[in-house]
Amino acid sequence: MQPAATPKLTPKAVQTRQRILDAALDLFAAHGYEETTMRDIAAAAGCSLGLTYRYFASKEDLVLELYRWLIDQLEEQTRLLPAGPIADRFQQLMRGLFAAMVPHRLTLGALFGAALNPRSRAGLFGAEGAEVRRRAQAAYITVVAQATDAPRRLQQVDDLATLLYGVQLALVLFWLQDLRTGSRRTEQLLQLVHDLLRRIRTFLRLPLVAQTLAQLVAIVGPLLGQDDARQDDARQDEATPAE
Amino acid sequence: MQPAATPKLTPKAVQTRQRILDAALDLFAAHGYEETTMRDIAAAAGCSLGLTYRYFASKEDLVLELYRWLIDQLEEQTRLLPAGPIADRFQQLMRGLFAAMVPHRLTLGALFGAALNPRSRAGLFGAEGAEVRRRAQAAYITVVAQATDAPRRLQQVDDLATLLYGVQLALVLFWLQDLRTGSRRTEQLLQLVHDLLRRIRTFLRLPLVAQTLAQLVAIVGPLLGQDDARQDDARQDEATPAE
Repeated sequence: MQPAATPKLTPKAVQTRQRILDAALDLFAAHGYEETTMRDIAAAAGCSLGLTYRYFASKEDLVLELYRWLIDQLEEQTRLLPAGPIADRFQQLMRGLFAAMVPHRLTLGALFGAALNPRSRAGLFGAEGAEVRRRAQAAYITVVAQATDAPRRLQQVDDLATLLYGVQLALVLFWLQDLRTGSRRTEQLLQLVHDLLRRIRTFLRLPLVAQTLAQLVAIVGPLLGQDDARQDDARQDEATPAE
Repeated sequence: MQPAATPKLTPKAVQTRQRILDAALDLFAAHGYEETTMRDIAAAAGCSLGLTYRYFASKEDLVLELYRWLIDQLEEQTRLLPAGPIADRFQQLMRGLFAAMVPHRLTLGALFGAALNPRSRAGLFGAEGAEVRRRAQAAYITVVAQATDAPRRLQQVDDLATLLYGVQLALVLFWLQDLRTGSRRTEQLLQLVHDLLRRIRTFLRLPLVAQTLAQLVAIVGPLLGQDDARQDDARQDEATPAE
């Protein structure tokens, strides 16, 4: 995994930071996330504990760095997508993402507990994951809006982007379970999604489909980083003392 | 949480076993699953470590006990469902399940990492979870088959059962994230599912819908415990040395 841009560091510091990150991801994969301590990470990276903390204030920051790297991949691959229908663009993007994730498969599997724990700082759906979700949402808007079969209504572009982001998360979840078949089932599922997306414009002309998509996105969207400006509802939620 | 039937234990032993289980679930909720040791559990239950191991050979067995209890709930509530359409039966079942899970919400959140880790013995989709998946699949076949709008084709009954089981897992996953709105979004999502299921018979008359359901279940079903007898394909997977 290559580091994200870290402008103020010397080349040696960049190297050290990278060594700590690599050691952490290896340890998460080998022993699990919760069981790995910062002390273990420092030892494996051959650094003092103090130095390790200077680069990463906590284990959660190491996880957030992995999320950010994945989003870097998503954005870069989105930029490289050729013109074409939504179905083809999404399929190509997923294949690229899976290829990037293969070396981190065990780490990602080990992180699922933290990623799905809304009380963890490393939670994908918690406060710290907000920027990651916003960037992913923006990338999927590009996937849809620049497709040859993009819907004309902007709201539908946004809704489809949210749908694709949700489908991506579901596919990754499925892929992490799909160890036995060498990812063959994941490829079949991706193909099924492709076949359905090829007809998405036709489907969206059916009032029931258009309406169901809008309802689904209104419910699930806020969790997936859909533009908060449109979610009066979501702001109301913030005020609810439910935690 | 009441214990599953444990015929050979004395009343005192049943009590001790229950105390260990309760202590474990509390500790998982408070400190996370990976971070809790059998030693912690023994201490919290006021037992020796040796005695604790006599009741539960490992931490994973404690998790499997929780899964089994949830499946007991699923089976019991399925038996109590009144006659009616699939949509109503599924909605009532989900409400009952969520009510049963509320006291264990934090524990279930803490267990998601292990539940979704295919390499953990506590993995829902691993070998040890097979009985749980089989029983859940059987319960959902009852939900569909005894509904007033059950499809006539048995294969479609099975496929719908698998679909409902998948939707249940997705709803639980969503509910565990839905802390901010006091589960209001989960209720909205359940209502949307209900509205779609009300039309399921109509939808299944459309060849594209029937075909997509069959394809989806063929891909995802094996993971959800669909009858192995019908999955030649799945047995072929077993032979693949992919792990």
